[in-house]
Parts: sequence; C-alpha cells; structure tokens
Amino acid sequence: MTDGLERRRMSRAARREQLIVLGVELVGASSFDAVSTDDVAAAAGISRGLLFHYFPTKRDFQVAVAERGADDLLAATAPPTGASPVEQLRAGVEGLLDHVAAHPDAYLSLVRGTASGDAALRAVADRTRAALVERVLDGLGLEPRPDPVVVLAVRGWVAASEEVVVTWLAERAVDRATVVTVVVDGLLLQLGALLPEGDVARLLAIDG
Amino acid sequence: MTDGLERRRMSRAARREQLIVLGVELVGASSFDAVSTDDVAAAAGISRGLLFHYFPTKRDFQVAVAERGADDLLAATAPPTGASPVEQLRAGVEGLLDHVAAHPDAYLSLVRGTASGDAALRAVADRTRAALVERVLDGLGLEPRPDPVVVLAVRGWVAASEEVVVTWLAERAVDRATVVTVVVDGLLLQLGALLPEGDVARLLAIDG
Repeated sequence: MTDGLERRRMSRAARREQLIVLGVELVGASSFDAVSTDDVAAAAGISRGLLFHYFPTKRDFQVAVAERGADDLLAATAPPTGASPVEQLRAGVEGLLDHVAAHPDAYLSLVRGTASGDAALRAVADRTRAALVERVLDGLGLEPRPDPVVVLAVRGWVAASEEVVVTWLAERAVDRATVVTVVVDGLLLQLGALLPEGDVARLLAIDG
Repeated sequence: MTDGLERRRMSRAARREQLIVLGVELVGASSFDAVSTDDVAAAAGISRGLLFHYFPTKRDFQVAVAERGADDLLAATAPPTGASPVEQLRAGVEGLLDHVAAHPDAYLSLVRGTASGDAALRAVADRTRAALVERVLDGLGLEPRPDPVVVLAVRGWVAASEEVVVTWLAERAVDRATVVTVVVDGLLLQLGALLPEGDVARLLAIDG
C-alpha cells in the first residue's frame, strides 16, 4: 500500500509503468482477458477508478499488458551481436525457454492471443510472431528478399516452436537441452532442403 | 422456407443434422463465436426459438458446429489404407489442403479455437490437434510408445502445418504442390534426425 502523498508524487508515466508491470505479474494463464483490474489496482494501492484514469478501458489496459509481454519476449530472445547465424538461432531459442520458464503465464497468454476473438489482442500476438519471423530471416542474411516458400517455412517453424514450448512447459517430458536441439534442428533441416546450396554451406560453415 | 407440415415431419435427429450443416456453411472466418443463430434459423425456415429447442444454448450450438467442422477435417485427411507411411502422410496433407481450400472459414474458425477463451471450443480444437498427432504417430508404426521427443516434434509439426496452411490460404504466394512438399518434408527431415536409423530406413524404404 502507498499513502496519498506517495501516490500524488508519482508521475503519469511512472504510474502507467507501475500498473503495466503489475499487470504482467498478475496475468493469468488463460488469457490477457483474465487480467483483473481490481487485483492490479489493489496491488498498486490505488482505486479501480484511478486505474481507469490512466487506461480509458479495461481492454486498453489488457492490450498495454500484452504489448509489454511481447516486448519482454522479444528482448529475452534477441540474438547476440557478432554471433554466426546458427549461434544466433540457438541463443534465441535458449533465451525463449529461459524466459517462458520464468514467466509461463505471460507467455501462454501471448501465444493464445494469436487466436483471440479480440482484434487488438490478436494484433499484438500476430505482430510478435511476425517480428520473430523477420528476425530469423534477417539473421540468415539471405539476399535479396527470400523465396516465399522460405518465408512460409519460417512462419511454420515459429508456430511449431510455440507449440513445442507450450507442451514442454505443461509436461516437462524432455529436458531443456533436448528441446533446444529439436527446435533449432527443425529449422536448419528444413532450410537445408529449401535454400540454394551456397546459402546452406555459408550458414553451416560460419558456425563451424 | 419450409411450411409447417414439412417442419413437423422432420425428426429431431434430422432437424439437428440440418441445423448443424447450415451452421458449418454459415460459419464466419473470425470464430465459431460468430455463427449467427438468427441466420441459421432463417436458413432452416424455423424460428430462433425453435432452434433453441434443439440446442439449449447458443454455445451448445456453436460447439456442435465446431465438432462437425473437426469431424469433416479428420475425414478429409484420413490416410488411404494400405499405403506406405510416407504415402499416407502425403495423402493426408493433400487432403488437408483440398479441404481447407473448399471450406476456408470453417478451418480458420477451428484453428483459432485452439486459443479460444471458451473452454468448450478450445477443447474441440485441442482434441482435433491431438487426433492428428496420434494419427501421425500411428502411421509411423513406431513400437513401443515413441520417445517423448518424437511426440513433441510431431506436435510442433501439426502446429507448423496449421500456420503454413493459414498463410497459404491468405496469401497464395506458393502453389499447392510446393506447400505439400514443404509440409511433408518438414516432418520427414525432423524424424530422420530423431528416430533410430532402423526406423528411418524402414519408413523410407517402404516408400521407395
């Protein structure tokens, strides 16, 4: 609980930030629809009415929380600079697994948002998937624009990765290192069959 | 429009069947949530009240429509008997593409149901995915129960296939034969890396 004085001292931006962070922490596994503005306001020590001073509607707040979840995911999976394409890919998948293990509910909500009936939440999930696809395509260093079938395969791989990670979270039937290998190899094997030989040799040689 | 006499002659089972078939035809691409009971009742020439005589709630009707959509999908992708594992896989993917090209909205609704906020609709989508995973595992003829990592890879492959098909439907950037090859090869390549050599040789040799 914060007292009235402390509450007043918080800037608008700081208060919004506090509420979004609390929203990410309190998100349920079912979906961002389930984030309770009552719980968030209580955790912030403010009234529910004041929360709506910062976010006009409950949906606005949920979308802000979803966007933060997406930003956190993209930051956690950002590839190290200077690494080879294959090292970048492996580091990204390892970052993904560590992030979702630490924030499983936020990840499940984000993934489920892909199929949300709400257009704004679906847009956040779709943008996140698209950003991951672009990042993988960029990391491969293909010039010029890659073949549409390569883009299709990478999109499929991002979706497969989500499903593998969600299943791993729920069942833990295989260890983390095995999941990393399955996910990384899934893309490399498919690209090996789709890309021209020169690209494949370059991708794998750099990693040697 | 049907007249009163015809309406009375329809058995309860026949009327339910008629309404479900109309529901599948009238499903929107957004989700099964969007199936309008008004539209379905009008198409059947009955009152909305009478529709609720056959389905206690709108949700009951939507779930029945989703289940029919799932049954249709599983029937359209059933592998031919007597075919080799690889032929079965290819035939299943071809059946999937033809089915979704003919019924795109029903497919999109089903796939999006995976992440539906409604537990009953999500259960239909999850059961469909699980049935496809089981079918692929059965088709591979692996004994005894497959390694958990193989199950994980097949689950990922089913999710990837959904994403590839949804993207293909929306963009048509590559032709049907290319999609079939990408989807089929995606699984075969991954299995080639995960299964013991004997299983791989058996799978590929039979197809020779």
